[in-house]
Amino acid sequence: MQYDRRFDGMNCRKLKELSAADSLRRLASVPLGRVVFTRHALPAVRPVNHLVTDGQIVIRSSTGTILSAEVAAFEAVVAFEADELDVEERLGWSVVVTGFAQLVTDPDEATRLKSMIQPWVMGEMDQVIRIRPEIITGYELVPAAG
Amino acid sequence: MQYDRRFDGMNCRKLKELSAADSLRRLASVPLGRVVFTRHALPAVRPVNHLVTDGQIVIRSSTGTILSAEVAAFEAVVAFEADELDVEERLGWSVVVTGFAQLVTDPDEATRLKSMIQPWVMGEMDQVIRIRPEIITGYELVPAAG
Repeated sequence: MQYDRRFDGMNCRKLKELSAADSLRRLASVPLGRVVFTRHALPAVRPVNHLVTDGQIVIRSSTGTILSAEVAAFEAVVAFEADELDVEERLGWSVVVTGFAQLVTDPDEATRLKSMIQPWVMGEMDQVIRIRPEIITGYELVPAAG
Repeated sequence: MQYDRRFDGMNCRKLKELSAADSLRRLASVPLGRVVFTRHALPAVRPVNHLVTDGQIVIRSSTGTILSAEVAAFEAVVAFEADELDVEERLGWSVVVTGFAQLVTDPDEATRLKSMIQPWVMGEMDQVIRIRPEIITGYELVPAAG
């Protein structure tokens, strides 16, 4: 697709802030987000499918991955971003949650959560990581004239 | 939409690594990505529309934003992620570029780049930031049986 990145006055947007509750609700409505973390002092990002339950974000991982080694092992602070943005209409929303990522160590709880979300990618994916939101921000792109 | 996050054996995928050239080509084919950076030692992420030209990623920003203050001012290392992921089919690709973000200070060059990419969101957006890729990684989700 040839996408025109130049100006079209009809499509100019402004940002409308979303409440924390609305942000979390939207985050829960999509199956996929991006977990953002620090690796060797460098910014890193991975798309991952997720679930929101009990106000927390739940993702799957496996022992050998960077996510498990760098994030879950240290209860690192991560950001989690999800969006639904229509590139034709230039409308949609984006939500960013910042919080602590923690390995779910209770076996019963891990089993329960595993039954609710399966990774897209094959492999062991034996670990369940939950992210406890500390900061929730979100915005919606709305027509500038609105 | 009610999205089923549980297991469907038909939809299991594996990751196929993309070459740097293929990754950059795919990144250039979409209008929107997410810039990932560090703010006050915390991971941060913003969706932003972009352009790839001369092997560099170009985005717009304005003086007052976190992006301009925290990233462009210090030639910070950032990651830039773009993807096209089909949540129904669980197919698609994701590319992550890591590199230095730099304010374009040459007025002619800034004017030239501004004519090629317009921000989606209204406002001054007087600054042009380019990201010089140092590390380019990408993968494609392909059927596990393939």
